[in-house]
Amino acid sequence: MTRLAVFGAGRIGAVHAMNAAAIPGVAVVHLVDPVADCDALAARIGARRSDAHDALSDDLDGIVICSSTDSHAELLLAAAERGLAVFCEKPISLDWPTVVRVTDAVEASGIRCMLGFQRRYDPNFRAVRDRIASGRSGRLEQLVMHTRDPGPPPIDYVRRSGGMLRDQAIHDFDQARYICGEEIATVYALGNCQVDPAIGEAGDIDTLAVTMLTRSGRMVTMTNNRRGPLGYDQRLEAHCAAEVLFIDNRPQTDLRIAGPTGQMTAPPMDYFIARFEAAYRAEMEAFAAWLQGGPAPLAGIRDGFEAQRLAEAAVASIATGQPVDLEGGWQP
Amino acid sequence: MTRLAVFGAGRIGAVHAMNAAAIPGVAVVHLVDPVADCDALAARIGARRSDAHDALSDDLDGIVICSSTDSHAELLLAAAERGLAVFCEKPISLDWPTVVRVTDAVEASGIRCMLGFQRRYDPNFRAVRDRIASGRSGRLEQLVMHTRDPGPPPIDYVRRSGGMLRDQAIHDFDQARYICGEEIATVYALGNCQVDPAIGEAGDIDTLAVTMLTRSGRMVTMTNNRRGPLGYDQRLEAHCAAEVLFIDNRPQTDLRIAGPTGQMTAPPMDYFIARFEAAYRAEMEAFAAWLQGGPAPLAGIRDGFEAQRLAEAAVASIATGQPVDLEGGWQP
Amino acid sequence: MTRLAVFGAGRIGAVHAMNAAAIPGVAVVHLVDPVADCDALAARIGARRSDAHDALSDDLDGIVICSSTDSHAELLLAAAERGLAVFCEKPISLDWPTVVRVTDAVEASGIRCMLGFQRRYDPNFRAVRDRIASGRSGRLEQLVMHTRDPGPPPIDYVRRSGGMLRDQAIHDFDQARYICGEEIATVYALGNCQVDPAIGEAGDIDTLAVTMLTRSGRMVTMTNNRRGPLGYDQRLEAHCAAEVLFIDNRPQTDLRIAGPTGQMTAPPMDYFIARFEAAYRAEMEAFAAWLQGGPAPLAGIRDGFEAQRLAEAAVASIATGQPVDLEGGWQP
Amino acid sequence: MTRLAVFGAGRIGAVHAMNAAAIPGVAVVHLVDPVADCDALAARIGARRSDAHDALSDDLDGIVICSSTDSHAELLLAAAERGLAVFCEKPISLDWPTVVRVTDAVEASGIRCMLGFQRRYDPNFRAVRDRIASGRSGRLEQLVMHTRDPGPPPIDYVRRSGGMLRDQAIHDFDQARYICGEEIATVYALGNCQVDPAIGEAGDIDTLAVTMLTRSGRMVTMTNNRRGPLGYDQRLEAHCAAEVLFIDNRPQTDLRIAGPTGQMTAPPMDYFIARFEAAYRAEMEAFAAWLQGGPAPLAGIRDGFEAQRLAEAAVASIATGQPVDLEGGWQP
Repeated sequence: MTRLAVFGAGRIGAVHAMNAAAIPGVAVVHLVDPVADCDALAARIGARRSDAHDALSDDLDGIVICSSTDSHAELLLAAAERGLAVFCEKPISLDWPTVVRVTDAVEASGIRCMLGFQRRYDPNFRAVRDRIASGRSGRLEQLVMHTRDPGPPPIDYVRRSGGMLRDQAIHDFDQARYICGEEIATVYALGNCQVDPAIGEAGDIDTLAVTMLTRSGRMVTMTNNRRGPLGYDQRLEAHCAAEVLFIDNRPQTDLRIAGPTGQMTAPPMDYFIARFEAAYRAEMEAFAAWLQGGPAPLAGIRDGFEAQRLAEAAVASIATGQPVDLEGGWQP
Repeated sequence: MTRLAVFGAGRIGAVHAMNAAAIPGVAVVHLVDPVADCDALAARIGARRSDAHDALSDDLDGIVICSSTDSHAELLLAAAERGLAVFCEKPISLDWPTVVRVTDAVEASGIRCMLGFQRRYDPNFRAVRDRIASGRSGRLEQLVMHTRDPGPPPIDYVRRSGGMLRDQAIHDFDQARYICGEEIATVYALGNCQVDPAIGEAGDIDTLAVTMLTRSGRMVTMTNNRRGPLGYDQRLEAHCAAEVLFIDNRPQTDLRIAGPTGQMTAPPMDYFIARFEAAYRAEMEAFAAWLQGGPAPLAGIRDGFEAQRLAEAAVASIATGQPVDLEGGWQP
Repeated sequence: MTRLAVFGAGRIGAVHAMNAAAIPGVAVVHLVDPVADCDALAARIGARRSDAHDALSDDLDGIVICSSTDSHAELLLAAAERGLAVFCEKPISLDWPTVVRVTDAVEASGIRCMLGFQRRYDPNFRAVRDRIASGRSGRLEQLVMHTRDPGPPPIDYVRRSGGMLRDQAIHDFDQARYICGEEIATVYALGNCQVDPAIGEAGDIDTLAVTMLTRSGRMVTMTNNRRGPLGYDQRLEAHCAAEVLFIDNRPQTDLRIAGPTGQMTAPPMDYFIARFEAAYRAEMEAFAAWLQGGPAPLAGIRDGFEAQRLAEAAVASIATGQPVDLEGGWQP
Repeated sequence: MTRLAVFGAGRIGAVHAMNAAAIPGVAVVHLVDPVADCDALAARIGARRSDAHDALSDDLDGIVICSSTDSHAELLLAAAERGLAVFCEKPISLDWPTVVRVTDAVEASGIRCMLGFQRRYDPNFRAVRDRIASGRSGRLEQLVMHTRDPGPPPIDYVRRSGGMLRDQAIHDFDQARYICGEEIATVYALGNCQVDPAIGEAGDIDTLAVTMLTRSGRMVTMTNNRRGPLGYDQRLEAHCAAEVLFIDNRPQTDLRIAGPTGQMTAPPMDYFIARFEAAYRAEMEAFAAWLQGGPAPLAGIRDGFEAQRLAEAAVASIATGQPVDLEGGWQP
């Protein structure tokens, strides 16, 4: 039996805990959350509610980190020290020197560490990556990505999130590397506040356009915002030499209504936990399979480091109005 | 130079006259319409406005009959007598014995006679027919057709039209034979008045469902009405052994608007002359090519006879509530 | 705690058992299946594996009948005798006199009895029904339904199934009544064997077209077969006075690939358990809610009786080549 | 009668000449092309084949310039001198000082001068502009545009074209200004050669990504190339505060084919003259209406100047790797 402790029982923590507990051969033995009211969840999955110290002192195979961002680094270091496998939600830390230090420590420790970039496990994104990697589409030349939220987050969340680039766009930065299959050479970004002035007052942006060039000359463009008409907008266009791959948004139902002014389809899905239900299940299964001797998962701690480096470069580009050259090991 | 006279300068007559005049090697030398104000049209295409007698006495290669339905039979017979090629809009006549007599006379005369089933020349319908005929789709098993008008016609038109089955649904009956590539064995029809009571008072129906079986056992279903939300609804599903072919309605523009309640596309095209612009051009070109030595066109007078026989069978089925067996040469 | 026994642990039985067990306040205390290897399932949901006698002798609130068709009648009667609530998969029985007898007995007993027409709980079909019932669409005039299977069933299944009309099309007959909100007056059906000759040799059909008229004059057409290109084809068009409602098939993914010959979307979902996952969950929740004092569910035993009466009428229509008039209490 | 001379009888010249001749009250009296074999065209529209001198010496209301790019400036100046109205295809000139000089001269002369940005007259693009301008969509925040050709142009054309930015992308630069309704403040561009090395050897690019910021802070991204899978790709997304407007590519037919691997729609239109047929007709009608006393058309010479200034800024950005600040009257 693979024994796990789950840290954090918020929305995403509950998803991971339930998914982990449903995998044959996996037991969630500890659920650690000093705040959330998660007795019912613990009971349902057969876990004990523990504090971090007790959980880490038990005989574990791995830990699942879904707690608040400011606790990630410490838990990663604790796992590295104890030789525990880790599944960790992004980001590693909002403080860049800490990102560097933790990434190095985790790699030096040799533990298995998987980063929670669930979009890599989404059937659509994965199919795009696999089809391009297979050579069937011809060389990828231009990658166009869209990420939009159903609406602006609460200002409290904005303040704690590290900003739209490190919080939301980091998934696109990761996808850019994953789908292109190579590193980014330059980043240019426009960012401002067009949706909600309160976000600007909190020091963040809510509207974003990023243009990147990969080492081999591919172009990547991203447009992101915190606006609602497209629900949880997660589209992609991969322009390849032989074909173009699109990921469309899934409508909430398959109903279409034709009236005098046109035909109306249902609005797109607007909740990330529903949109990525299959992806969250698949990534936890991949983590469990890894612990049980299977292959390495699709995202490791170095991917978290690199995606965040791109987010930092975009922050720098917005601040200076200039593109950032990532070659030569640029760091913020 | 191929010399034509066009009879009738209403909406469809104007389309045919202009299309004919634009074909290299074709001249519309007479335009015959005692009623319509068509001097401008005649001038534009270089035709003389004539009466029927003068036109038929001239040296002609063929005539194009787009005049009112009650004049079709007489003009067809006149052409048969004079050995003139004919393009004739459907129907041959609203009176069945006349249909029989004129069809026989035209065939006996040996003249070239093309019927105006323009849907056979529509790029979509033709592609379906050709793909099925090529064997690529596998055997056609079920054919589902939809025809709807953007709205009920004027009651005056209803009275003169011969009824929805002979006026509107006749195109579907023709398509059934054309796409199946064989004759119909049985017809069962439901017809009533759900759209506009005035249509019922005028003795017609406005809502229709037809189910047919072909000789080899294929099933054909049609649903038709005079309702508007789908504009000029002209859809088709051809269920074959290896694939299913769909014809969708073309939206008026390619604009799509995403708002909080869903995504709205433009309404479908709602005017038959715009919807079948390419088909009308192609069928007149086919007629001209035939006169200039090319192959026979896709629809002849016997197709007009057979489509109308199916319409008559549907009329009989609605009247009796029973299916009509067309084998053994059923006639109304 | 609402205590249930589940009879039958095949594909659909496993779905219902898991869904029931996941509802707060519901316990599946017995799982009855003399054949299936369902120890793991029983363990997972905390049920005891029992034989029918033990299960029915226990203190139960209701039973869930997902066992083989030939056991439905006996279990329904057992429930009626004991005053147990029942959820029963369709059909009641393949033998019409038994259908009549069991329906009468269940109704006379006063027990709560829900029939498993899960399509009534599908978010798409339910939205269509609700929107029409609300008056917003205007009067429903024509209902067009399509049901196709991903491929022909095994011949063994064909032999036990009662035939395509009672097995597959019964869902469409139920939908016709549910969405029209009234009874059917006449049924006309074409049925033959175009997909797999072995089905014909087993005495069944695999291709079907049904045309029906409701009491108030609405038209309903169904086309069904056992062919694959549309996967698990479950489409609908509801033509109403003010708008047209469509249910489209859901593609397996949201990927679209543009190549030189066009744009390809993913194939539609092809497994009924995945297609109706939400519907199965919702119908079991409705059953549980009913037992816990909530409103009556969307389908009762009389709905099972009436849908099957329509299937029997279609069987008779195919046999005679004539429409069947259902008024005056027609029975096979 | 409005008397026009048309200069240039190539593909686009023939379109404009035919469209102009079909407008009531307009006569094309001269067709000037020293090279093209255009006697048949001249005969069809009732024009005389003339040389430039004779045509300009006649009594004209205006001229239509569709001749080769290197003749535009001279003809524009000739029209300015003679007080003739002009319709001129883009670009004004490939030489920037000439663009400045001609624009100033035309404006100083007071003649009516319309630039051939036909996309402004396309029903889709115009509907987007009008809907945004009406306020109904809320404030435009992000504009995403795609332009792709069905395939790389001949290398000869590449050499004469002024490069992809001045030849193809200039339409997008014009749309950016037209749809945003304001001027661009900064331009950042990536350009390289990924499609055809011969284009790179000829000194041009074939793949492009542009990011722009408008004065009020809107973001505009463009991705362009010379690749084929999307035909003549002309899509747009306008992300506004209340809704998102999309322009999709029109498929060549309305046929959809469902097979075992998915559903295939027809490929998009792949010829600009067919794609913009309605737009070309509408822009020539607007020019004629202007000459006959109607309102000014949607694009004047200053729009040609500004779109080209953006193209020059993109050229500069690609050369330097830096964004170009257009404020303060930047010129190349």
